[in-house]
Parts: sequence; C-alpha cells; structure tokens
Amino acid sequence: MNRVVIKLTGKLFSPENVRVLMEIAEIVIEYKKRGLRMAVVVGGGETARRYISMASEAGVSLGWQDILGIGASRLNAMLFSSLLGDYAYYPVPTRIEEFIHAWNLDKIAVGGGLQPGQSNNAVAASLAELLNAELLINATTVDGVYDRDPRTDPNARLLKELTVKELKNVLSQSYTPGKYELLDPIAISIIERAKLSVVFINAFKPYMLKSVLSGERIYGSWVSP
Amino acid sequence: MNRVVIKLTGKLFSPENVRVLMEIAEIVIEYKKRGLRMAVVVGGGETARRYISMASEAGVSLGWQDILGIGASRLNAMLFSSLLGDYAYYPVPTRIEEFIHAWNLDKIAVGGGLQPGQSNNAVAASLAELLNAELLINATTVDGVYDRDPRTDPNARLLKELTVKELKNVLSQSYTPGKYELLDPIAISIIERAKLSVVFINAFKPYMLKSVLSGERIYGSWVSP
Amino acid sequence: MNRVVIKLTGKLFSPENVRVLMEIAEIVIEYKKRGLRMAVVVGGGETARRYISMASEAGVSLGWQDILGIGASRLNAMLFSSLLGDYAYYPVPTRIEEFIHAWNLDKIAVGGGLQPGQSNNAVAASLAELLNAELLINATTVDGVYDRDPRTDPNARLLKELTVKELKNVLSQSYTPGKYELLDPIAISIIERAKLSVVFINAFKPYMLKSVLSGERIYGSWVSP
Amino acid sequence: MNRVVIKLTGKLFSPENVRVLMEIAEIVIEYKKRGLRMAVVVGGGETARRYISMASEAGVSLGWQDILGIGASRLNAMLFSSLLGDYAYYPVPTRIEEFIHAWNLDKIAVGGGLQPGQSNNAVAASLAELLNAELLINATTVDGVYDRDPRTDPNARLLKELTVKELKNVLSQSYTPGKYELLDPIAISIIERAKLSVVFINAFKPYMLKSVLSGERIYGSWVSP
Amino acid sequence: MNRVVIKLTGKLFSPENVRVLMEIAEIVIEYKKRGLRMAVVVGGGETARRYISMASEAGVSLGWQDILGIGASRLNAMLFSSLLGDYAYYPVPTRIEEFIHAWNLDKIAVGGGLQPGQSNNAVAASLAELLNAELLINATTVDGVYDRDPRTDPNARLLKELTVKELKNVLSQSYTPGKYELLDPIAISIIERAKLSVVFINAFKPYMLKSVLSGERIYGSWVSP
Amino acid sequence: MNRVVIKLTGKLFSPENVRVLMEIAEIVIEYKKRGLRMAVVVGGGETARRYISMASEAGVSLGWQDILGIGASRLNAMLFSSLLGDYAYYPVPTRIEEFIHAWNLDKIAVGGGLQPGQSNNAVAASLAELLNAELLINATTVDGVYDRDPRTDPNARLLKELTVKELKNVLSQSYTPGKYELLDPIAISIIERAKLSVVFINAFKPYMLKSVLSGERIYGSWVSP
Repeated sequence: MNRVVIKLTGKLFSPENVRVLMEIAEIVIEYKKRGLRMAVVVGGGETARRYISMASEAGVSLGWQDILGIGASRLNAMLFSSLLGDYAYYPVPTRIEEFIHAWNLDKIAVGGGLQPGQSNNAVAASLAELLNAELLINATTVDGVYDRDPRTDPNARLLKELTVKELKNVLSQSYTPGKYELLDPIAISIIERAKLSVVFINAFKPYMLKSVLSGERIYGSWVSP
Repeated sequence: MNRVVIKLTGKLFSPENVRVLMEIAEIVIEYKKRGLRMAVVVGGGETARRYISMASEAGVSLGWQDILGIGASRLNAMLFSSLLGDYAYYPVPTRIEEFIHAWNLDKIAVGGGLQPGQSNNAVAASLAELLNAELLINATTVDGVYDRDPRTDPNARLLKELTVKELKNVLSQSYTPGKYELLDPIAISIIERAKLSVVFINAFKPYMLKSVLSGERIYGSWVSP
Repeated sequence: MNRVVIKLTGKLFSPENVRVLMEIAEIVIEYKKRGLRMAVVVGGGETARRYISMASEAGVSLGWQDILGIGASRLNAMLFSSLLGDYAYYPVPTRIEEFIHAWNLDKIAVGGGLQPGQSNNAVAASLAELLNAELLINATTVDGVYDRDPRTDPNARLLKELTVKELKNVLSQSYTPGKYELLDPIAISIIERAKLSVVFINAFKPYMLKSVLSGERIYGSWVSP
Repeated sequence: MNRVVIKLTGKLFSPENVRVLMEIAEIVIEYKKRGLRMAVVVGGGETARRYISMASEAGVSLGWQDILGIGASRLNAMLFSSLLGDYAYYPVPTRIEEFIHAWNLDKIAVGGGLQPGQSNNAVAASLAELLNAELLINATTVDGVYDRDPRTDPNARLLKELTVKELKNVLSQSYTPGKYELLDPIAISIIERAKLSVVFINAFKPYMLKSVLSGERIYGSWVSP
Repeated sequence: MNRVVIKLTGKLFSPENVRVLMEIAEIVIEYKKRGLRMAVVVGGGETARRYISMASEAGVSLGWQDILGIGASRLNAMLFSSLLGDYAYYPVPTRIEEFIHAWNLDKIAVGGGLQPGQSNNAVAASLAELLNAELLINATTVDGVYDRDPRTDPNARLLKELTVKELKNVLSQSYTPGKYELLDPIAISIIERAKLSVVFINAFKPYMLKSVLSGERIYGSWVSP
Repeated sequence: MNRVVIKLTGKLFSPENVRVLMEIAEIVIEYKKRGLRMAVVVGGGETARRYISMASEAGVSLGWQDILGIGASRLNAMLFSSLLGDYAYYPVPTRIEEFIHAWNLDKIAVGGGLQPGQSNNAVAASLAELLNAELLINATTVDGVYDRDPRTDPNARLLKELTVKELKNVLSQSYTPGKYELLDPIAISIIERAKLSVVFINAFKPYMLKSVLSGERIYGSWVSP
C-alpha cells in the first residue's frame, strides 16, 4: 500500500485527547518515513460546534455557520500539522488544488473543510479520488460500521466486510439521528463513482490505525467497491 | 429586489450564441447601474464536454475530469467578464470566499465551478445562501420546469409556480436521463435549508432575464421555499 | 473623527457574550454608514488558550503556540466579520498589507494576530500608525487604566487622562502579573513613535464604544502622545 | 543533458490527438524518472481560437482576446498535467516566478501563456533563459525549419543545422503569412541574448521527442547560438 | 477624458527628486478626486541599475537581471503608492490581472515591470489596451519626441504631433544608442494594434502632467494612431 | 548540526561587496549539498536607507518607512536567491508561514523583513524558534560581541562565550547609539524564551561562516541560553 487518505474525527481535538493525537502523529510520521504517501482531513469537533452555536444564536445563515465550522477544522489541522514537524505541508490547504500540490511534493497535507454544504467526509472522499488513493481510512468514534446503533443496542454487531451497497443500506435503515455520522450521501456517491476502498476504525484506539497502515485487515469495517 | 444570484447555462458559450451573451451582458450592466447587486455562475458547456471527453479517453479519473470541467467553466466566466467591462470583478473567483469578497466590494463576480463532485448549480445555490440573495435565477435551456419532459412530450405543461417539495417530485418522477439537468440533489438541499426563492427561465430568451430583474413574475417557473 | 482602529478583547468571543458581540457589530455598522472608516483587531480569547494549552501539553514550541493563538484570533475575526455582513472585508486579512488594501477599498477589515512574538495590541498599534488613524480604541475587560489593580484593590482609581509616559509608569509599577494585559512594550513603542491617541474602554459595555465613536470623551482612559 | 524546456504546439489538444498526448506524457515521465529536469509550455490551439473568435465578434479588445487565449492554453496545461500524475507541479503556473518555484522543487511545471502581447514561444524562451536550460525543444506541426514553405513547395528542404542568424533570415525571407508560426521576434531576441540552443521537431511524431531527450541529434532542425 | 495610463520614468526615484515625486502625487490625487481613472507604471531607475550591475558582476543570467530590475521598479511603485495614501491600490500589482482588478475597484494601481524580456513601456501600453485608456502618458526625461537627439544636437526640434508611423521612423533613424529610451518595438507594436493615443512629456516638469490631465494639448509630443 | 538560521547584514548588498556575497553563496550551497538545512534572513542595507530617507523627506509615516525598508530587504533577498540557483526557494517569502513551507520542502528560503515595527533580527530569531534551529548565525559587520565599542575603543575585547543574560548587559551598558545594531529587545526576548544558541560573526569574513557551518567554535561570540 502506497497511497492513503486519512480522515480523523474532530472529536480528537480537545484537551483530554492530546495524548491520543500525539500517538496518531507518531504513527503517521513513522509510516511516512517508510515511504507511505498520506493526506489527512480533520473534522471541526468541539470548536466547530462552539462557533456554529454562537453564529446560530446571532442569526447568521447556515452557509456562514458552515464557513465557521470550516475555520474551526482548519485550526485543528494547524494543531495536527504542528505535531508532524518537518513532514507536514504548511500552511494548511484551503483548496483541493493545494492538496494535490502538497501530495505531488511528497509532503503530508493536513486540511479541514473546503466549502459550505460539503462535509469533511466528502472532502476526504474527493481527495482519495483525485490522488488515486488505494485506501480511505475513516477514523471515527466507534470501532466500525454496525448493523444497529452500538450506542443504544447491546446486540449491535460490527460488520467486518461490506460492499458500498450494503453500507448504504445500513446507513439508511438503522439508527436515525446519527445516520450521517459515518458518511453523508455526497461522500458515498464519490466513493461509489471512484470505486474507493474504505475502512472505518476507531480514532481513539491508535493501534487500529497502525495496524491498518501496516497492511493488516484485523480491525474495523472494510468497505469494498 | 436588491440581491440576486444568476446561474447561466454553459450552452450559451459557443460561437453561434455570442449575440445572446452580449444581450445578457448588457442587461446585467443596465441593472447594475440601477443599483442591483449580482453574482453570476456559468456552466462549462461545450468546452467542458470536450476536455472531459479527452481526459476520459486518456483514462484520467472522474475527479480530474471534474477539475477540467471546472477549468472550462472558468474560461467561460473570463469571456463573460470581458463583456461586463469595469463592472466585473476580475480575476475570476476560484473560491467561495472570493465571491463574498467581490460582493462586498459591490462588483459583479462571474465564476464557474469550485470543487470536484459539486455541480455549478450547487455553487450558485451556496452563493445565494451566503450572500442572502432574495432570488436565485437559473437561466437554462428551457422556459422553466415542466410536468413532463418538454423535449419529448408535446403535452408537457410549464409549471408557473411550485414549492421546493413539488420541484423535488417533478425532478424525481419525470424524464429520467436529464432529470439532473435542472438541479441536482445537493443544490436542492441547499435551496431547501436556506429557504431560497428560485426562478427557472430560458437563457436563450434574454427578455426573460430582463423581465425577472425588473421585478416582474411573467416568465419562467417560480419556486418558493 | 474619520479614521479609527478598534481592538476588541478576545474574551468577547464565547457563547455567553454573543449578545454583546451583536451590539458591538450594530454600532460598528451604524458608524460605518455615517462615513467613519474603521479597522478591527480581535484577540484569541478562550479558543486561543485552549489550543495553546493543547500544543503546550504536546511539547510544541512557543513559536508554534503563538501561531495557533493567531489561528484562534482569526476564527474570532471570521465570526465578527459574519456579523458585519456586506460591510466586512472578507476573507480575514493575514498580512498587514491586506489591512491597508481593505482600508483603501473602504471596507471594514477584521483581523487577528499576524506574527509569532507580536501581540494583537501591537498589530492594532501598527495598523493605527499605517492607516493614520486619529484614534486607537482599546476595548478590554475593565473600564480603563487604573492607578492600581482594580481587581484586587478597592481603592483603585480610574485615570481619565494620561500621557503615554504616565501610562508606561502605571504599567511598570502597578499590578505585576497582568501588567501586559493592557499593552505590551512593543505596542507601547509603536504608540510612542507614531504619536497615537489611544482610549481604553470596557468592551462589555458597548455604550462606551458608541459614545467614543460619536466623538464624546465621557468614558474610559484617554492617552495622549 | 540535465535541463530542458519543452514547448508543445496547442494543436495537440484536440480529441483526435489524445493518443499522441498520452505518448508524449509517457516519454516525459520516463525521462523524469531518469533524472532529467523539465518545464513544459503549451499553446492554446483550437480552444484559444474559439474563444478569441467569440471575443472578437463581441467587440472585445485584442488585449482581452490575448487573455482568453492565455486562459485556453492554461486549460490545455491542466489536461497535460493530469496526464503526468504525481510528476506534475500543480496548479498550473500563472507567473514566471511559479515556474522557477516548481523547477527548484524538481517538479514538472506545465504552463501556458503569461501576458497579453507575449507569445507562448516567448514564454518558453524566457523560461529556458531563467532556468539555465541546455536545450529548448520546440515541438511544432512540421519536422523542423525549412528553407521554403514545406506546405506549398515540394522542393522545400529541411535545415538540419543552422545558427540563430540563419534562422532569422529564413523566418524573414520565406513563407510570409505563417512566418511567425515557428518563432516571433520577441522569442528570437531572448534566444539570441541568452545564447540558447534550440531544436524544432514535429510534436505529432513523439519518437522525435524521445530521440532528442535521449541526447541524439537525428531529427529536427538544430539551432545554435 | 476619463481613463488614463501614466508611465513615470524610474529616474524620478532618487533622493534629489523627492519634491518632484510629491508634486506628481498631488496632481494625481487632485485628478482622482475629480473622477479621473488612472493606472501608473514606474521604471526601475537607479536602483534597478544598481542591482542589475551587481547581478551581472556575479554572473547571473540576463533573465534574472531583468527580474531584479522588476523588483527595483516595484520598490519604486511602493514609494509612489505611499505618497498616494488612501487613493492607492495596495499592495503593488505583480500581474496584469491585478491591474485590471484595481482599475475595476476604482483605485490607482501603481506597478512596475511584470516579466523578464518586457519593458515597463510595454507594460504600460498593454495596460492602456486592456483598460481601454483614452490616453497613455509617457513621462520621461525629455520634453517629447525630437527629430534628432536633443542631448547632442542643438538644432533638434520637438515634434508636437506625429503618427505612430512617424514615431517609428524617428526612433529607427535618429540617435542610435538611446533609441529605445522612448519606446521599444514591443511597446510600439501594442500601441499600433490597439490604436492608442500617446503623449510624451517631461516627468521633471510636473506642470506638463497637470496640463495634460486637464485636457490641454500644450506640452509634449502627441502621437495619434 | 542539521538545522541553522543565518542572518546576513544588509551592508553586504552593495556593488563593492559582490565578491563576498558570491563567496557566501558558494559556502551555503556547499553545506546544503552536505545535507544541512538552512534559512536565510537578509537586511535592507544601503537600499533600505535610501528609500526610508526618501519617504521620510516626503513626510510618510514611520510605519510606511518600515514597509519600504522591508521592500528593500526583499530585493536583497532576491539577489542572494539568484546566487543560490536551484537550491533557493523562490519567490522570496513574505510571511513567516512561507519560511516554514520552504523549510519543510527542504529548500533554502531567503527572506527579508516581514512586518513594520519588527527588526530583521527578530524575524531571524522567530524563524529559528519555529524551525527548531540548533544555531542562529548572526553575520554582522564586526567579529562578534565586544565588551566596549570596538569602533571607538582600541581596548575593546571580543567576548568568545557569553550567556544571553550577559549579552543583555553588554548591549544595555556599552556603546549607546549603535546598541541595537547587534540585537534589539524583541529579538532578544525571542532568543531567551526559545533558549536559542546564537553566534555572532563577521559577514565580511566568509571563512568565519564556513568554520561555523563545519561545526567549529573558533570564530565569533557564542551566546548560550
């Protein structure tokens, strides 16, 4: 495996998770040294929620709320870049062309959102398509894709392998409110058209990322085209 | 009416339509002089198709094909900007922030696509949301929204007024292959969340644009939130 | 008075202060409509502290911690810009030249920090010098400059008028830990060399800002060259 | 040979020539892998002609027509960049400084025109000067420089070796209308002052490019300072 | 007269000419206030010569020497911009598109050179074409165009009116070494194709500039298409 | 030693010192080839003084005078970049983020000043902090730090080793007018907080630079945290 796009949940970017972030950064640096090409997209997390809620209270439009959420995700990207040291592409890319630029220069670009109305997952999928990534790693808050909502149903079962079609079924049928937590329709449509391979893992268990980058298929849910 | 976003079909940008383009530019300038604030998004048209087909033949990914289509739409935007003279914001915006920049400076920004996986209609809808536009004018190849495909069914009837919900029904039920010609799901979801007013008119009948800009509701299909 | 630079404390940018922020934005818009030229510099506040503390825990250098604080102040600047609507220069300036650019175009630039090792107060003072501002308004957390620390000493007295020299004395003699809260030495040296007029007011009492912008000298501490 | 600037005729960029473009891209990648440093300038071709003719019909100035031609050449550069994959510098350079930037980073910059009133050949010559290129390869529509117009005169003879002075004579004396097709006076003056070595080959015969890059002097017309 | 491009000789930018520069800036501001749209191009002067000579001694190529001369002309443009205060477009434009940008925003752009191998006069002519200027004012070191070299021939006669064709004759026939001092062939070819009106005046006699801007045709040599 | 920031006095950039500049450039290239990572900050020198004095005479503010001085230092940076050929990062960085960008791409960025009110020494110190430089080399006009002013006192003694605290004492006690020639308080405060190692050497004796880069501690004054 030579080309990977990693999506990190914004929930990582809060004071209690600094150690996890540092572990993830070390893993990324380690695999960069081994020759793996990577691009990273991070979410807005708590900071995004904070600014979106302030903007919302002030009566600012949803479009501008998106822009503030994007700003927050870029602040997270700056923090993660600072952990990568010389390996990072800096400053944080704000256009998809800059991600391509950084990739071709063999640096790790760490970015956040790009446009209102477009999720960070859609950005990651679009990047994976443009960069011909062999794998899109979606590091989220759960261990993978479940057949039911793992947070409420003790019988929820992790799906170790599934097709994009099956993923769409799971996302549409099961747990309603958080159904876009894993992937929104735009992100899925890009994954479909580009025939991307995707794995969902738990960002808070960095050994899962390490395992995936090493080429193992032990952890997470693997989605094939 | 003070704030308008205009989407022009890329089909206008071919040698046989130069006179139409000139007429549209004159109308835009006239209403700018009267104090109307406008932003314009143009499609990629024939040039986009040409480059996408070349890239496709060369085996380039769909994401890169989108980028070439975006490049073509920007070339169209350059041409239309040159017709607006001093009234245009120049150079052509390549990020949504630049559209806001141009708008706040009271110049007419003319742009094309922005991101792979995002239609020009979605760009126009997103802009209308961010700029608090009172109306999104979608100038396309037909006189408005029909209950059936007007190109194949002589009994197709123009819908003069409809809600976003009705628009979605029409787009999902009727003429299949071209059903996204008017609006794709992403564009519609932005229109819905931002509660935008939209009118569909025929770009090749510039008097329709003039009528709409003057505040009349004579031509086209009017979509209310 | 025609030319003003306003420095807003970053402490304003938290959910409980949204109403205050909205009031300040309305006042700024009102005076912009009356022809006043303004530039605004905002602090990083709670968000800056949050990211600096995360970076510090991760062992990142003080220079990079500054960069994250600057990023946070820019996020605050985005939020305040969104409240100014069409009156704002957008995107947020990241170089001093962009502030000049925005000023000459007669838009309100709202920015944050610019360089590691340089406080937001120094940015505001530098801007006031470059833009030939008649007044630098420093809206902070207290009603002005006191002869002792108002937070610990009930006998602290607000100084209504003072010279830069007297300000330097107060800052150097009195309350130690927060002595640079009002102004750091770099900011003061720019204020001195440019012979700027400065007023310190309480950002959380927006009527003070309104009064100052109207030309009154009722509230705050006025520093003359 | 370590440093080469390649000028590709814009005529390559049409659907019927996609295979040729792909072959050229493969050759360029192959020699890049062998350590050759290259920069590429492409013409505007059919797309440029199309937009210039539309602008001309609309009464737009020659300067703006040039700008549209430049835009078209950049679209061609985007297409060629997409064929080079990770080896390309992306996005397409729009200033001569960006070409230097890309060169120093050891990536292949593919650009088009830069300024109104300046041919793409002049851009290529200027680049060759700035980058200390050992050879400027001009891949055009004919096999080289002829003593008469090869398209009308069956006795036209290919000149295998000539000096810049002889080249200027040929260009000024022979076939009139297309005399600047090979090189305009500005391009020649740069070639002269920089004492560049130039070879003219046929872009539609990619084996000629391959031969030249391999160091052979079999095909084309070689111009020495 | 509403649209003017002014070319100022770089010789103005030396300590002994500060008063002249200030006078010129005041005249430009005065006519800006009256509604005249202007763009300004300045030469590199003494600073350019200094850096070019250093680069030359160090064996740097002529292309890079041009780049340093351009850098020097931009430094002069910065100085002149600082004299125009709020009326200036800032920062100094470095691409022709930025000049258009500034013009459309109704600010006075002051720039220098743009590309190696292109004189500042060619830049000014190209701008005049793109901006549809009614007049290109070339403020140089002599009072206008002479039939012989005024510096060596006491019988040299100022030509008050001449056609572009006559100008070309004068430039080619008369005083050899400095013959491109007034205009180089590229600049002339743009003037010809764009059918520009040009006047040559003495930059060191600011009353000439004032007179020309007021619409008089008293001073200088007037070149008609 | 792997990571170094070099500050070169602007006094090097005048015609009589071209040979010295060339020698320095050769040394920098030599150590770059050996794998040393470097960033370079140059002063404004004679050109800065020239433009600042013109601006001062014209009544321009000290802030704008700083901007012109920065412009001059960037012109010097262009000249030095041209001497480094392919090893240079080009164009000249104008923001601290660009220096980081260049460093991570393993090119030698050569820049000048960045902000009004900030010395070039402060820029160099800030860079050294951000880039985790092991050594900040300050190449100035004297052989190092003296206990008295070496230009007036024949008994002045070079201090071979000193702490930052001792350096501050020397700078505050000794030769008054030029006391900030070596380092201003902002630069020192960054050096202190970042615990940087600094060496002062004579820029006009390039063998000193060579010796320092080779790891020797023979020449200059070495300042430890």
